[in-house]
Amino acid sequence: MNHKPLAITMGCPAGIGPEIIIKALSQLDIDVPIVVVGDINILKRAQKLLKIDVKIEPCIDPSQIVKNQKGQIYCLSETKLLSEEIPFGIPTKITGRASFSYINRAVELCQKDVFSAVVTAPISKTGLKKADIGFPGHTEILAHMTGTKDYLMMMAGEKLKVTLVTIHCPLNDVSKLIDKDRVENTIKITHMALQKDFGINRPKLALCGLNPHAGEEGMFGMEEIEILRPICEKMEEMGIDIKGPLPPDTLFYYASKGRYDAVICQYHDQGLIPFKLLHFEDGVNVTLGLPIIRTSVDHGTAYDIAGTGTAKPDSLIAAIKLAIDISKNRIKAKR
Amino acid sequence: MNHKPLAITMGCPAGIGPEIIIKALSQLDIDVPIVVVGDINILKRAQKLLKIDVKIEPCIDPSQIVKNQKGQIYCLSETKLLSEEIPFGIPTKITGRASFSYINRAVELCQKDVFSAVVTAPISKTGLKKADIGFPGHTEILAHMTGTKDYLMMMAGEKLKVTLVTIHCPLNDVSKLIDKDRVENTIKITHMALQKDFGINRPKLALCGLNPHAGEEGMFGMEEIEILRPICEKMEEMGIDIKGPLPPDTLFYYASKGRYDAVICQYHDQGLIPFKLLHFEDGVNVTLGLPIIRTSVDHGTAYDIAGTGTAKPDSLIAAIKLAIDISKNRIKAKR
Repeated sequence: MNHKPLAITMGCPAGIGPEIIIKALSQLDIDVPIVVVGDINILKRAQKLLKIDVKIEPCIDPSQIVKNQKGQIYCLSETKLLSEEIPFGIPTKITGRASFSYINRAVELCQKDVFSAVVTAPISKTGLKKADIGFPGHTEILAHMTGTKDYLMMMAGEKLKVTLVTIHCPLNDVSKLIDKDRVENTIKITHMALQKDFGINRPKLALCGLNPHAGEEGMFGMEEIEILRPICEKMEEMGIDIKGPLPPDTLFYYASKGRYDAVICQYHDQGLIPFKLLHFEDGVNVTLGLPIIRTSVDHGTAYDIAGTGTAKPDSLIAAIKLAIDISKNRIKAKR
Repeated sequence: MNHKPLAITMGCPAGIGPEIIIKALSQLDIDVPIVVVGDINILKRAQKLLKIDVKIEPCIDPSQIVKNQKGQIYCLSETKLLSEEIPFGIPTKITGRASFSYINRAVELCQKDVFSAVVTAPISKTGLKKADIGFPGHTEILAHMTGTKDYLMMMAGEKLKVTLVTIHCPLNDVSKLIDKDRVENTIKITHMALQKDFGINRPKLALCGLNPHAGEEGMFGMEEIEILRPICEKMEEMGIDIKGPLPPDTLFYYASKGRYDAVICQYHDQGLIPFKLLHFEDGVNVTLGLPIIRTSVDHGTAYDIAGTGTAKPDSLIAAIKLAIDISKNRIKAKR
């Protein structure tokens, strides 16, 4: 199959990104060409450290890459290479600027249809800040570059997929942030992505209640009756198969057994506690709603173990596989 | 070993209690004598329904029971037996009164040292209400009968044990209910129970943060800095091995891998989402802090399937085993 190459951004050069990329690409056997957007010096350093038998080659024109031979890694580098002396575990102006440039390059080439998708290795907020880059993380950079307003993070694994109505806010602010627009948007973006990106014709969604027992008819909170239930009814009328608001404590068990394709959660830990319990090592973060395809590892730069060769590539491998699946599903949907 | 008999209360006669008791006792092979406190007519009805080969015998004086032969079930009944015609799935004044009397009898005999422990099958709030019994559930009845003020529910399983600082309240009230006394009490009761009841000499506890990433140094909430961290420090000074407040989304994974013996959670779903994900069928509810030993199934009367013979006895079996373990640990601790 003649599939456009997938880009993997190397992430922070001082983090575990280069190591997990070498590990993942030495293990994977995939029919889609892959190009690392990063720095060939740093990748080679990771290879020496890991003593893994792969061949790292510079890539000049990614549109010419049609196949990786087993153990062949292509790297598209910046003009000026980083020094191999970059210390492990320390985010600096240099690493911040470099991380940002990999993302920029990969996304631009994705927008130009050279790459089919972008898989991102972890970067550091501190590094970006030191390099005076005004974005706190990947998602904001990607939303800005693609001019996307309605985007959403999904945590995806074999057993469980969750999206979140609210994310990084105090628990005490959650109730007042749960409003009609936010919940409806989250449901709609999740639903559309399951159809278009995951190839599920009629996705089965569950909406998580906010309160214990989903409020138990108003005994433990009114948000289910006043906000969530009417939204579910409206969405059902629009033809979306959604159940809820359901009691959070039992819902994830049923979801993990396949009853639902995704669970829409009201707050960070409601979704991430069960997700990380099931997918601690192989969870994938997908940005829904973007025109380009982007998946990411579900962990940080792990500076404490960078350079030790111990980081596990499971999440990156899962992120690569998922990006390819999404890409193939989108191609199918277009036909 | 000459161990005092364990009591199992039959729970609501119209629920799945009688069926799961027959199933559990036909499977278990235990060196501790067991007496069902309930109604022999209703138990026999369940046996007929299940067609399980057990011998149900009346028990007159539980202090005389020293051993159950395989398949031998003793039942301590009320003087006036219930009719076998009690309809399945419907809580009434009769079933409410009966459920309450089983608990009363079992607890009294436990207090008189005739029984070593009480394992409770599920009862119905509605039934209790119809019988004009002014308690909403087991825990309140037990606390009242034993004059206990500081009690606590623990959800216990092989992989995870959790206790809760707040339980049945709206999520929006959790933050204001998290106070020093409540958190300290929960930690102390959990710690003592792990030592005395679970036989863990130096229990390893984890205190869950309230906010995403445990507040990330105050960025997403101040409860960790203002309340939870000082409590952890104080408890450590008192010699309790407690870590926290820890980020909730990763903590349960580590706890499930054995890093902690129990997790103290701030609210209902924080603890019950991961607990039910891991122990949906075999979770046990233990009331900590009581002078008597009480464990319970982790599910309700399941009226929708009562009388169908399909209810699973896993949680009851786990509750019986745990009650026996606790009883043996308490005996050891006394020596």
